[in-house]
Amino acid sequence: MYSFMNDYSEGAHPKVLELLMKSNLEQNTGYGEDTHTLRAKDYIKKLVGKENVDIHFIPGGTQTNLLVISSFLRPFEAVIAADTGHINVHETGAIEATGHKVITIPNKDGKVTTDGILDAVRYHSDEHMVKPAMVYLSDSTELGTVYTKEELYQIRQLCNREGLLLFLDGARLGSALTSKENDMELSDIAGLVDVFYIGGTKNGALLGEALVIVKEELKTNFRYLIKQRGALMAKGFVAGIQFEALFQDNLFFELGEHANDMAEKISSTLKQLGVEFLTPPVSNQLFPILSEEFLEELKEEFLFSVQKNMGNGQSAIRFVTSWATTPASVEALCNFLQKKLK
Amino acid sequence: MYSFMNDYSEGAHPKVLELLMKSNLEQNTGYGEDTHTLRAKDYIKKLVGKENVDIHFIPGGTQTNLLVISSFLRPFEAVIAADTGHINVHETGAIEATGHKVITIPNKDGKVTTDGILDAVRYHSDEHMVKPAMVYLSDSTELGTVYTKEELYQIRQLCNREGLLLFLDGARLGSALTSKENDMELSDIAGLVDVFYIGGTKNGALLGEALVIVKEELKTNFRYLIKQRGALMAKGFVAGIQFEALFQDNLFFELGEHANDMAEKISSTLKQLGVEFLTPPVSNQLFPILSEEFLEELKEEFLFSVQKNMGNGQSAIRFVTSWATTPASVEALCNFLQKKLK
Amino acid sequence: MYSFMNDYSEGAHPKVLELLMKSNLEQNTGYGEDTHTLRAKDYIKKLVGKENVDIHFIPGGTQTNLLVISSFLRPFEAVIAADTGHINVHETGAIEATGHKVITIPNKDGKVTTDGILDAVRYHSDEHMVKPAMVYLSDSTELGTVYTKEELYQIRQLCNREGLLLFLDGARLGSALTSKENDMELSDIAGLVDVFYIGGTKNGALLGEALVIVKEELKTNFRYLIKQRGALMAKGFVAGIQFEALFQDNLFFELGEHANDMAEKISSTLKQLGVEFLTPPVSNQLFPILSEEFLEELKEEFLFSVQKNMGNGQSAIRFVTSWATTPASVEALCNFLQKKLK
Amino acid sequence: MYSFMNDYSEGAHPKVLELLMKSNLEQNTGYGEDTHTLRAKDYIKKLVGKENVDIHFIPGGTQTNLLVISSFLRPFEAVIAADTGHINVHETGAIEATGHKVITIPNKDGKVTTDGILDAVRYHSDEHMVKPAMVYLSDSTELGTVYTKEELYQIRQLCNREGLLLFLDGARLGSALTSKENDMELSDIAGLVDVFYIGGTKNGALLGEALVIVKEELKTNFRYLIKQRGALMAKGFVAGIQFEALFQDNLFFELGEHANDMAEKISSTLKQLGVEFLTPPVSNQLFPILSEEFLEELKEEFLFSVQKNMGNGQSAIRFVTSWATTPASVEALCNFLQKKLK
Repeated sequence: MYSFMNDYSEGAHPKVLELLMKSNLEQNTGYGEDTHTLRAKDYIKKLVGKENVDIHFIPGGTQTNLLVISSFLRPFEAVIAADTGHINVHETGAIEATGHKVITIPNKDGKVTTDGILDAVRYHSDEHMVKPAMVYLSDSTELGTVYTKEELYQIRQLCNREGLLLFLDGARLGSALTSKENDMELSDIAGLVDVFYIGGTKNGALLGEALVIVKEELKTNFRYLIKQRGALMAKGFVAGIQFEALFQDNLFFELGEHANDMAEKISSTLKQLGVEFLTPPVSNQLFPILSEEFLEELKEEFLFSVQKNMGNGQSAIRFVTSWATTPASVEALCNFLQKKLK
Repeated sequence: MYSFMNDYSEGAHPKVLELLMKSNLEQNTGYGEDTHTLRAKDYIKKLVGKENVDIHFIPGGTQTNLLVISSFLRPFEAVIAADTGHINVHETGAIEATGHKVITIPNKDGKVTTDGILDAVRYHSDEHMVKPAMVYLSDSTELGTVYTKEELYQIRQLCNREGLLLFLDGARLGSALTSKENDMELSDIAGLVDVFYIGGTKNGALLGEALVIVKEELKTNFRYLIKQRGALMAKGFVAGIQFEALFQDNLFFELGEHANDMAEKISSTLKQLGVEFLTPPVSNQLFPILSEEFLEELKEEFLFSVQKNMGNGQSAIRFVTSWATTPASVEALCNFLQKKLK
Repeated sequence: MYSFMNDYSEGAHPKVLELLMKSNLEQNTGYGEDTHTLRAKDYIKKLVGKENVDIHFIPGGTQTNLLVISSFLRPFEAVIAADTGHINVHETGAIEATGHKVITIPNKDGKVTTDGILDAVRYHSDEHMVKPAMVYLSDSTELGTVYTKEELYQIRQLCNREGLLLFLDGARLGSALTSKENDMELSDIAGLVDVFYIGGTKNGALLGEALVIVKEELKTNFRYLIKQRGALMAKGFVAGIQFEALFQDNLFFELGEHANDMAEKISSTLKQLGVEFLTPPVSNQLFPILSEEFLEELKEEFLFSVQKNMGNGQSAIRFVTSWATTPASVEALCNFLQKKLK
Repeated sequence: MYSFMNDYSEGAHPKVLELLMKSNLEQNTGYGEDTHTLRAKDYIKKLVGKENVDIHFIPGGTQTNLLVISSFLRPFEAVIAADTGHINVHETGAIEATGHKVITIPNKDGKVTTDGILDAVRYHSDEHMVKPAMVYLSDSTELGTVYTKEELYQIRQLCNREGLLLFLDGARLGSALTSKENDMELSDIAGLVDVFYIGGTKNGALLGEALVIVKEELKTNFRYLIKQRGALMAKGFVAGIQFEALFQDNLFFELGEHANDMAEKISSTLKQLGVEFLTPPVSNQLFPILSEEFLEELKEEFLFSVQKNMGNGQSAIRFVTSWATTPASVEALCNFLQKKLK
């Protein structure tokens, strides 16, 4: 049974594995101080368009989130996130476990809004409450949408005015940057946020997220913080080699594009069939609203997850595609949808 | 220049990589709930000789240490470790960062002693001090020695009497269990400690430690704790597959043996040359005491680390071998030693 | 200008100060192991109707809240509170600073409801989310309401079914227990919750909250936890003496009653004048809804705080009375209200 | 039986209580924003000789220590303390509970030395270890000694060179500043350290420590941190009034002097009797070395604590005097010593 459950079901893209194989018996320096890691950083710096960013490869997304937020906030400071933000519910309180409150604001199609941020800042007015000090957002969001350059610019302006750091969780940045709705490049993002990461786990790697620290003041002694949280891999080159493979020939973007193409085939079919979506389908996560009766049939043939009960016997479900999604499986799904929903 | 700096310079054993390749495009369930992980656990359970242990695969050693210690201690409880214990100095305060004091006791060739543990317990006598509640030890130790069954048994007895948990850090358990000084099997260890781990990173894997929870009361809800610390890999099968490869045909032990054999060739040569050691050379870490004059020459040809200035122009250095150490490099080193030290 | 801002504007009730004076030059054992503390505990145990509760005197409310919650929850466990609960917004993230998420549910007149608790429990369904493990409620609530015995009993039953601890914040328990809406005694509360505290700071003492641990499993080594959080007063007898004075002759209840009587005079006057309230006025906190025009006049004569903008030029404000509120000041306020609002 | 166990056995100096009584029924603003607190701060600022220090009154010493250290260090930074430092053993891991390692160095008569500090700084050389970032010292020390201006100056210079913050725990600063060995005033201390506190609990108050933040960068948003740790007293004026009483007429120094005078009477007697001391007797804590045989008799008449078994049937004990120690009790003790030890 083919799975559209998520984008971390398969291993690594063959080119990534190939480079791991090729360099396997080299003797590399530990803890990310090897030449592969260095090369991977150079490739990313070129795309980011800045030489003076700091880049660190972290094993996973939750770990990157907790590391960034706990490293850059003082104990009484809090992070603002959309209520749908990954750090709010789906990380087992990892942020709170580092001592920081997550202030939630209502999402708009999975995005934070300047109005929401401003409300949170104004509400927290004195020392009896936490002090909002960072905005967290995901691109693409947990509901599959992507930020426009103008949206991110407005959030940046607000952060400047209110003294907030801006942190972009890019666990699915590959899909975001190759979405048809996207009008940004890596260099635009690096120009607008203080810190962000480029997800490898969900876009071709076995594991690994490339954390990019843009803001100068945040760079100091960051390797101490990585080590203390248990995120400094002895074999750091295992991540370095993978990001080298992903960025030496634009593989990263090709993989994002493939995932989006696969998703678009599905969403086109659904649209033609008159199916509505919880949020606009623009990246590798789709949230069609379907009858529970039909879902009973669908789940006999394909794996997916249920996002939200919409009432009236309808549910929004989630289909996720990835670099590994096969055209054949998408065709099978589309055929099934057409046959059953027409 | 060949490196004897550490046992995490190369990638994974070819058989491990091979299984990763072979299963790469399978669709596996995320978060360690896949069939490879299940099989790896079954192999380990057989060796451990207990069906009812809980096994979790964690990306790295520091993370496993902080996860175990912070999960099983109440806030005011502390862990006792040798002053040479990895958690004391070389983890950037990772244990303290989770809120717990590390009580250090003098090491004896890198080992904790029952006398040392008892002193620590007696000294901490009331609620104005932390309460010792766990003993941490490494096998093999940070100084390359290994515990005997009798030693571990005596520590267990003391832990029982004083109500202490016993945690064994097995980052180098592969080398320990295949040491000529060792008289234990995995099942002995599982019979004597409450929780331990089997290091993959330093014995054939790209990354990963197999945490084995023996004591019933410690098992509950442990996956919540893994997730909260950012240690629950989305692609958990990446660790599962590797441990499957390491344990399906005893590869894990063969690799430990190889590392020890390589080390023994070096230590035999050194002994024949009349060189003394900081601690008895019995595993894959050797600590010969050499003149600084000679070390100047040595470092032109080989990479190693300096452990301790012994005075009188002598230093103890550290040579580390691994599954990947080549006989040719060992021969080159031995030839060099014989030529220069005769 | 007379202040109805809060119930911690004055020092201690004269009888409390008197006992402090009288015992001032005695030599007492430190850290709460003195005879006054012992006597105070005995008085409370009698009222609680249980000999086997553990009682500890803690300097302040926020400290008691963070101590209780962080001591009794495992790292991944969370506490459920009303969105109006003091621990949610008004303690500067003190609970999160100890590592725990506060799960908020909608309040009903400041109270938690069984429906709300159950929703929170059901929503948090797996290890990717925190695990609800405690219910926090305040009596009287932050909106001045009090729980009935039946309400507390239903919450207790739900906690039993769902394996949740029940913690009652009694910072204003003096006013709650002497409210006309109240149908509980201290012994009822001790029979229904696992841990609670009796607020001294807001009911006659200079400082101090009497924490009562009812559930056996929670008692162990609690003094270690108090000390570690910096809440074990060297001169513990300073709190002990005050609670001795408050409980040796029912002074604690008399003071609660006085505060409520003062509040009732104000609320009666307001009701007669047709003023509506945000929540039913039953304890020492009143939340009348008044026109902002009138509030401009009111604030020239009395101090109070604004709780909530109700729209239409109306705001709910807060009047607080206490053991120290003088009949004269209440009369002055009532006269002012009658003159201006008629 | 008269107690020389500690300096926190009695309540407050009568003049302190008197001012509490006098202002008891005033309506004061909460949370330390009242006029008494303001006046107390002004008195202290005058003595400190700086207008631009920030002063906060904190309930107790352990709380002040944990608040200062956790507020001013980044997560991977550690504090250096003498092995005899109060934060090392006697605060139940309160510092580690906030996430920070305490690096201990050997004490010299209870003091830290520049050599010890420098060793610790040099040893912690890379990101695999914590980074020393603060020096903690107590004046008077836990062994009753006091720092000279020159000693503190040398430590300051070293801290400047190595980028370390300097924090002085003044729980017993009253006795230190009035010691015959002392050559500093409050203004000297404020000129040499970054942050320090003036202990009220052990020198005339019911409770309270006056924290003085000298270094500009440390001041920002400190009230948030106090609140988050549960150390912001609702009735902050209770501490403010007491420090007002202690500093409006130099009472604080008179009380320190009295404690020292009482101690000196005892130490003179002991010296005349040929008794030796663990450390030079210069403040209100004395550590005479006496035979265990004699201690059996002594403990029938007076309370004291045993500090250290010296071997040969000798033990160092601790006598503590305070503002409340009566001349009669000192005379009784001296008579007893003379009668029994002659």
